[in-house]
Amino acid sequence: MSAQGDTTASRAGWVGFLSDYGLSDCFVGVCHGVIAQIAPTVRVIDICHEIPPGDLRLGAALLAQSAPYMPKGVLLAVVDPGVGTRRRALVVRTVNGSCLVGPDNGLLLPAARVLGGIESVYEMTKSDLMRRPVSATFHGRDVFAPVAARVAAGMDPARVGARLAVDDLVHLAEPVARLTAHRLEGEVLTVDRFGNVQTSLGARLLADGGLSEGATLRLNCRTGEVQVPFKYTFADVADGMVVGYIDSAGMFAVALNGRSASLEYDLRPGDPVALRVGV
Amino acid sequence: MSAQGDTTASRAGWVGFLSDYGLSDCFVGVCHGVIAQIAPTVRVIDICHEIPPGDLRLGAALLAQSAPYMPKGVLLAVVDPGVGTRRRALVVRTVNGSCLVGPDNGLLLPAARVLGGIESVYEMTKSDLMRRPVSATFHGRDVFAPVAARVAAGMDPARVGARLAVDDLVHLAEPVARLTAHRLEGEVLTVDRFGNVQTSLGARLLADGGLSEGATLRLNCRTGEVQVPFKYTFADVADGMVVGYIDSAGMFAVALNGRSASLEYDLRPGDPVALRVGV
Amino acid sequence: MSAQGDTTASRAGWVGFLSDYGLSDCFVGVCHGVIAQIAPTVRVIDICHEIPPGDLRLGAALLAQSAPYMPKGVLLAVVDPGVGTRRRALVVRTVNGSCLVGPDNGLLLPAARVLGGIESVYEMTKSDLMRRPVSATFHGRDVFAPVAARVAAGMDPARVGARLAVDDLVHLAEPVARLTAHRLEGEVLTVDRFGNVQTSLGARLLADGGLSEGATLRLNCRTGEVQVPFKYTFADVADGMVVGYIDSAGMFAVALNGRSASLEYDLRPGDPVALRVGV
Repeated sequence: MSAQGDTTASRAGWVGFLSDYGLSDCFVGVCHGVIAQIAPTVRVIDICHEIPPGDLRLGAALLAQSAPYMPKGVLLAVVDPGVGTRRRALVVRTVNGSCLVGPDNGLLLPAARVLGGIESVYEMTKSDLMRRPVSATFHGRDVFAPVAARVAAGMDPARVGARLAVDDLVHLAEPVARLTAHRLEGEVLTVDRFGNVQTSLGARLLADGGLSEGATLRLNCRTGEVQVPFKYTFADVADGMVVGYIDSAGMFAVALNGRSASLEYDLRPGDPVALRVGV
Repeated sequence: MSAQGDTTASRAGWVGFLSDYGLSDCFVGVCHGVIAQIAPTVRVIDICHEIPPGDLRLGAALLAQSAPYMPKGVLLAVVDPGVGTRRRALVVRTVNGSCLVGPDNGLLLPAARVLGGIESVYEMTKSDLMRRPVSATFHGRDVFAPVAARVAAGMDPARVGARLAVDDLVHLAEPVARLTAHRLEGEVLTVDRFGNVQTSLGARLLADGGLSEGATLRLNCRTGEVQVPFKYTFADVADGMVVGYIDSAGMFAVALNGRSASLEYDLRPGDPVALRVGV
Repeated sequence: MSAQGDTTASRAGWVGFLSDYGLSDCFVGVCHGVIAQIAPTVRVIDICHEIPPGDLRLGAALLAQSAPYMPKGVLLAVVDPGVGTRRRALVVRTVNGSCLVGPDNGLLLPAARVLGGIESVYEMTKSDLMRRPVSATFHGRDVFAPVAARVAAGMDPARVGARLAVDDLVHLAEPVARLTAHRLEGEVLTVDRFGNVQTSLGARLLADGGLSEGATLRLNCRTGEVQVPFKYTFADVADGMVVGYIDSAGMFAVALNGRSASLEYDLRPGDPVALRVGV
């Protein structure tokens, strides 16, 4: 099997693609091209390519939040500050039958959990499945996209190389999210285009802390303590007012209706936040 | 019919998709995924997702200007500052056989006009056509994309809910565009990447005002009166010079050849402009 | 044959699409729509649309670097500061069987070279293959996309108009790249999202100059002389350290591991760079 142009394995299939490649270069387009050369009937959905360069935690969070909404197939994720080092390249098969393709740096694991957990993991080593010569700095093009194309087109993921033990995989630190005696302690997970601040505190943790819709919450953040009415959605408060709500990913989020909460409270991914509990 | 994963209704079809979701989050990708889950043979064209957050007038203008160039099918448009409120969700069938899917906030109506006018309008209320549970803040994913997918795949739009009277729909204020005794009064409709300033003054209105190619126009704008030669295209003037022309959407526009007219004259969407007529 | 909506010629085919249209307007989406109207089975890969407005040299470089990774078919490239003037519109057939569609301003030629060289060139003049009326300022929509769609769907490129002599085509100046007695003289070709600085100096030229991996290079650039270890990849140096390497396009590049070399050394496309040779 040649790495370029073979289409024998092709059947309709899907690749969801997330990266930190950005859209001002041609990296994303080139990966699309490589997939089309290898598996022309496979279709690609661009999940997001504007992950800040090398930001594994944000990439992992957005991949996990998108995963349930992708058609069954392959998720190709490339945020890869270790490209060209000995970090391993993985295909992760999940319990629900999807495959994740990307570097062994923790990026894939939160999405694998969302997709039912890991069924098996393989290290990509078979170079005849890659595009050769493999460059030092663009494994998206030469390693990950070619393998993603083949798996999406029906190739058994076990063919890419040796099976690995799940315990051997590199993990990212989990985002802080805990209930202490007086506080729910978390961190900012993502900030979206609208400036809405998504925290690591899930709906269930808020319920565990006795916080429910209708209450006024006391949020501690970089700029001090803010009184935040806990509502169903941001449109439940007047224009420009602050509101807390459970967002579309099931996480507690803080918004200003029609403005940026991120700017107002100087909150960015990774920043600590806490909600007062009780009293 | 289950809301997730049913593909029975699928036939090839098209969805043109415009939103203010931006490309730095995964909202757009998630909507693509939801459409693929429901109607895998439907193909999606991204019209534009960088509408400024909540900017209904710009979203409506760009949707209307793109509509004639989209393959027959569905236009899905989500600029939705009222998400989670009681604003209605619509499917608009146009006289020429396309369908528009989006919120009842005026966003869809200029495009409907371009597509021959409204044939019928339905309010989306059938929750079994949506993705459940419907979140408070991401109706693109849970309401609009699922219904757009189904309609593009062949579902009768009348199935989404009750028919509405056209007169009941929410309208945006029309852009100013009028001929008075001495002036053509309009406003800036859009500014493109190149800094070209598109006004609300159409080619016919200029003709009505007696303004034709070859004349030197007197344009009143924020920074005073500017002499603008009215030419066929911006390449008809020297580098860096100002020019007025009828743009590719049929509107009078002002450009600087090779530079940004928007920056030079401090003109942005919504700003008033006027052209002197006669004398 | 009517310019709108005919699908008779349609067969599966590919269009790779590069432009300076940006993603904040609807120009790119409209071109996709026009292709879908004319050739619904053709699929489009967006190579890059964030070429700086009118930057022919950068557009030409990125098109050439992407070309080998695109499926066989059509490359549609629109960076066209001369739109509306008498500059010609071209279809270039390459020796390896691909076609390039775009303006006659030099943009297409480096990619044609990468694809085996020019087999034949035609000037687009047959207006029945265009979208009429042809606007003065949006030939992507009215001229290039319609013809690209038809050629991708199987139309013989010779049908677009008269054959031209290759010598008559407009060329861009070649990027500087030469070996002198004491120096390799080149220029910055591209800067990517990560701030990696790609030069016009190819791997072979470095070998000709006696520069090989393991050496410490002396790079002359805007900010003075920098000592640059020549390694396999940027991950071969510690975080934040400078490194020279052969990049994924085969060109000598300079990076800071985890930071922007472009910012650090104030290097942008077109800037001169030189490497000391010998002594």
